[in-house]
Amino acid sequence: MAHSHMISLSSYVLLLFLGCLAQLGRPEPRLGGKTQCNIQKLNAQEPSFRFPSEAGTGVQGTVIPGCAETFESQGESFSGGQEQPGKGQEGSKGGQEGQRQRFPDRHQKLRRFQKGDVLILLPGFTQWTYNDGDVPLVTVALLDVANEANQLDLQSRKFFLAGNPQQGGGKEGHQGQQQQHRNIFSGFDDQLLADAFNVDLKIIQKLKGPKDQRGSTVRAEKLQLFLPEYSEQEQHPQQQQEQQQHGVGRGWRSNGLEETLCTVKLSENIGLPQEADVFNPRAGRITTVNSQKIPILSSLQLSAERGFLYSNAIFAPHWNINAHSALYVIRGNARIQVVDHKGNKVFDDEVKQGQLIIVPQYFAVIKKAGNQGFEYVAFKTNDNAMINPLVGRLSALRAIPEEVLRSSFQISSEEAEELKYGRQEALLLSEQSQQGKREVA
Amino acid sequence: MAHSHMISLSSYVLLLFLGCLAQLGRPEPRLGGKTQCNIQKLNAQEPSFRFPSEAGTGVQGTVIPGCAETFESQGESFSGGQEQPGKGQEGSKGGQEGQRQRFPDRHQKLRRFQKGDVLILLPGFTQWTYNDGDVPLVTVALLDVANEANQLDLQSRKFFLAGNPQQGGGKEGHQGQQQQHRNIFSGFDDQLLADAFNVDLKIIQKLKGPKDQRGSTVRAEKLQLFLPEYSEQEQHPQQQQEQQQHGVGRGWRSNGLEETLCTVKLSENIGLPQEADVFNPRAGRITTVNSQKIPILSSLQLSAERGFLYSNAIFAPHWNINAHSALYVIRGNARIQVVDHKGNKVFDDEVKQGQLIIVPQYFAVIKKAGNQGFEYVAFKTNDNAMINPLVGRLSALRAIPEEVLRSSFQISSEEAEELKYGRQEALLLSEQSQQGKREVA
Amino acid sequence: MAHSHMISLSSYVLLLFLGCLAQLGRPEPRLGGKTQCNIQKLNAQEPSFRFPSEAGTGVQGTVIPGCAETFESQGESFSGGQEQPGKGQEGSKGGQEGQRQRFPDRHQKLRRFQKGDVLILLPGFTQWTYNDGDVPLVTVALLDVANEANQLDLQSRKFFLAGNPQQGGGKEGHQGQQQQHRNIFSGFDDQLLADAFNVDLKIIQKLKGPKDQRGSTVRAEKLQLFLPEYSEQEQHPQQQQEQQQHGVGRGWRSNGLEETLCTVKLSENIGLPQEADVFNPRAGRITTVNSQKIPILSSLQLSAERGFLYSNAIFAPHWNINAHSALYVIRGNARIQVVDHKGNKVFDDEVKQGQLIIVPQYFAVIKKAGNQGFEYVAFKTNDNAMINPLVGRLSALRAIPEEVLRSSFQISSEEAEELKYGRQEALLLSEQSQQGKREVA
Repeated sequence: MAHSHMISLSSYVLLLFLGCLAQLGRPEPRLGGKTQCNIQKLNAQEPSFRFPSEAGTGVQGTVIPGCAETFESQGESFSGGQEQPGKGQEGSKGGQEGQRQRFPDRHQKLRRFQKGDVLILLPGFTQWTYNDGDVPLVTVALLDVANEANQLDLQSRKFFLAGNPQQGGGKEGHQGQQQQHRNIFSGFDDQLLADAFNVDLKIIQKLKGPKDQRGSTVRAEKLQLFLPEYSEQEQHPQQQQEQQQHGVGRGWRSNGLEETLCTVKLSENIGLPQEADVFNPRAGRITTVNSQKIPILSSLQLSAERGFLYSNAIFAPHWNINAHSALYVIRGNARIQVVDHKGNKVFDDEVKQGQLIIVPQYFAVIKKAGNQGFEYVAFKTNDNAMINPLVGRLSALRAIPEEVLRSSFQISSEEAEELKYGRQEALLLSEQSQQGKREVA
Repeated sequence: MAHSHMISLSSYVLLLFLGCLAQLGRPEPRLGGKTQCNIQKLNAQEPSFRFPSEAGTGVQGTVIPGCAETFESQGESFSGGQEQPGKGQEGSKGGQEGQRQRFPDRHQKLRRFQKGDVLILLPGFTQWTYNDGDVPLVTVALLDVANEANQLDLQSRKFFLAGNPQQGGGKEGHQGQQQQHRNIFSGFDDQLLADAFNVDLKIIQKLKGPKDQRGSTVRAEKLQLFLPEYSEQEQHPQQQQEQQQHGVGRGWRSNGLEETLCTVKLSENIGLPQEADVFNPRAGRITTVNSQKIPILSSLQLSAERGFLYSNAIFAPHWNINAHSALYVIRGNARIQVVDHKGNKVFDDEVKQGQLIIVPQYFAVIKKAGNQGFEYVAFKTNDNAMINPLVGRLSALRAIPEEVLRSSFQISSEEAEELKYGRQEALLLSEQSQQGKREVA
Repeated sequence: MAHSHMISLSSYVLLLFLGCLAQLGRPEPRLGGKTQCNIQKLNAQEPSFRFPSEAGTGVQGTVIPGCAETFESQGESFSGGQEQPGKGQEGSKGGQEGQRQRFPDRHQKLRRFQKGDVLILLPGFTQWTYNDGDVPLVTVALLDVANEANQLDLQSRKFFLAGNPQQGGGKEGHQGQQQQHRNIFSGFDDQLLADAFNVDLKIIQKLKGPKDQRGSTVRAEKLQLFLPEYSEQEQHPQQQQEQQQHGVGRGWRSNGLEETLCTVKLSENIGLPQEADVFNPRAGRITTVNSQKIPILSSLQLSAERGFLYSNAIFAPHWNINAHSALYVIRGNARIQVVDHKGNKVFDDEVKQGQLIIVPQYFAVIKKAGNQGFEYVAFKTNDNAMINPLVGRLSALRAIPEEVLRSSFQISSEEAEELKYGRQEALLLSEQSQQGKREVA
């Protein structure tokens, strides 16, 4: 996302800035969507710290302007956090609020997410996330600043509605800018805001939170959020299909806005085995989310791929046709080689859990899982990212006449046939192919 | 418009170049659609001179190549301007023209425009404008050179079919370029043009107009243009709807061209009270034109907003989600504050009639009208520009659960409720809200 | 094409890099899709060598990942090239291959092309070309690196699946880069590739072809390729129409991918007289291919125009509304003048066979054929490129009321009429118009 507003309430977010210089560490300015790319060496990157963690769940809110508040919460719990309903109402307030108690709190849709979910964060929209589980939540986020949704420059601009982000990690200070980084209310005049909100100045001062020492991620008491159970809302594939056929999301750019956006599909689980798009019982499985599954991805020009490679399996060497790919290792390790268009190796190393590697468009890559297998998620900068395999049943070589291969590579007809038919598997290749060189058609 | 060709016949045009450095006055080259934006201070700009003026009307012609000449004029008036019909025909011509008189002059569609109209000037198409009223015409024009319609660089290239633009204001000389700026015919060889036109060299020399001292805007005698009355053509909303449902304009990019383009909708009045999209009788009204109303805006990625704020009314603080906004003050004055994503104030001043301010994407802004009210027109670089209000019935805070606000801002439940429900108005906020803090649902 | 993979088997390809600095010879970096363009002088360019040549035909293969191998070849001919079927099978192989002989070789669609064909090379897809005729094939190719399909930088990245491209012309060496340019397999580890292909290391070493001295274009013995006859496949206009109505290609970006892409239309003949879109028996003819004829051009934002100007005919002066144009002279010669938006001449010269000239968007151009006529092909950077003629039946002047012309150019009514109606021809103007100045309607 080019730009997202987050009130993060105890998640850890690794932010990736995708650009062709992203991994070179050079401070060159990024110019336009198409920068000067002289990529001679890629590096794998790691987060600075890590949680040993079980799978967690969380609650996420995306505010879509103009949409109705269609969710209700009880709204009877007050500053004390976990008081029993009915008591807090009288305890902490004066008599002037006799009328208020009858109303539940209303707000926009809340979304529960869990391990394996891909969440779409709409650029420029308000986001907040709350971990109501007992274990840390680990999320991996791609921010595509070159996306056409971003009309400004190639910098990520994260801004805050609450809190005091400069207390967070001091990250902003690294950039040599002496400007403060406070929440968005801080820049406005107190009285103007008080007039606009029609509230007392005291509340405005709290809104600006100048003494808030908590940074961008804050520890919250147990929040009483009411939302439908995950199982009811998300796992009926039939409902999801209907939503898609309705065309929500796709219309974002060209149709009437508010009505369709209000019910837009913003998440999909790509970890479930039964949702695999590519499956080889000897080598692993791959699940993708693209604009066929989440239509609004067509306006964001993004997609994702979740891969499970079994022990020593190989992802067929291929190049990215129409997208960059940012691969994050979720579990295990693999040997990865990346080759540029001139046949030069720009990466050849073991990558392991928590590391990230970017494979640019038009670069070729091969991945071989280690003994423990290899799990990753890859984000791609096209809503229908395509790859061109060099090996296997879907390979370029297989699509070319034997005669042409023979002449191009100066090989015999038998060798050409071995290149075309030596692997009957498609994308995920098992360690030792047990199949014959060529099946009877 | 990236590029427009104008034969302006007595209008005053203020040209705005929208880029993120537009108001910083720095001579940095603009690189790609996404430039380096280090916006620490915005300024309001003013035109160099101004007309005290009543509302005028004018006639505008957009030439669409390949479309038929569907309008006829009398064509009997000659060099003398206002001679009586029938007389001039014989007076100024010789006998060789006996045949010609029978034919009316034919040309493409003419469009009358009046106060409050938004005109779409198609990039790369021939435009001319004629003020046939008694008072000066004041127009405000946005040229979006970052538009994808422009494949060249981020400069505006205005070229002329007639006249001698370098006589106009000497503006071209400021840029240190010693090249002349003449009309487009001037660059071609006389004889080649005479061959192409099949006319005498004398006419070609007049075409080039080297001695024309009139610049780009010329004073014309009363032209005899024939066009249907404004009231018949433009003010039947039903007709307009039919035109839209026909899908003209939207097809510009992907369908057959000439036929649909020939009847494209190119204007809409956004000043009429009855067309308001947002209305608060205590605070004002807003009318927008987007690609829902003028479909061809979807290929230009532009829209416009006309605002009328009553005395001391507030436009709710909000940020631009997906567009830059260039706001021109038509009448009155307002206090405007603009805040960047780090909470730093980049603009805080009174703006008044004739001034212009650009609010970039992802920047937040609050506007409070002065005692005399505030009228503006804002151009936005997205055909469906969206804003995210921070206050009021459509605000981000209202869409977030009270529990989350309480925890994020460290405020009490009562205060959270005041922030959410203190204003029952939507975008335009009255000076003193007379409503209770929260209505009974 | 931003990027194409070619195994060229004896064609000569002239690569054109279209950018606004393309012809200025300055080594400035190209920044973003919109570079700084200070075009004061255009030059015509020529290829470094040329074949005297009859019209040839060739075979072209585009590999589309995931599509089935729908073509079969005999597959019984081996290293010997032209052996008789049945014999080679036993001669060159051992007994271990008894089973293989029964199978024909399978591969993806092959396309025959001939003089006058425009071929679409999809960016990032594998391409190969084979000249099976007796004369050299001359092709002219446009690579549009500013196309949105290319997410990297504004350089062309041609990479090779076979051969040893650095042996070709040493062109890569000019750029001062000491990196080698080998085929894409060279960068990968031998053993990893052998595992992936499930073949012996010996074959992998041949795949990398380090000792291949043949460069990117290799001389092949007569290949036995089987493909349907050109006359059957390509020249039934009815069939082509059906294919178009099916909407293949148009869906590339927004619909399901593989199925439609597999039958995408990738070529069209623009040399045939009966396909002319503009025809004047006294001046010549023009044929265009745009996304109406080849739908996938809409995602590539490219189109082409083939022109035949008869002796001394004039292509009406016009400007490019929405595209750059790269014009290559196929036969004959013409005088061409190009004028910028300020009326300055940036090109005025004779261009002849084999030369190339780029006319940027918003620049005006006039072409007058020499005594021997003038044939060209022009590539344009918009799938529906539009021009705005200044002269003739479709001209801007004709669409403007006589009154306006009279006042703008300070000419008489008679002169205005001559400008509007002096040419009754549309785009292609004959040397001596035999028509009267104005026809009776």
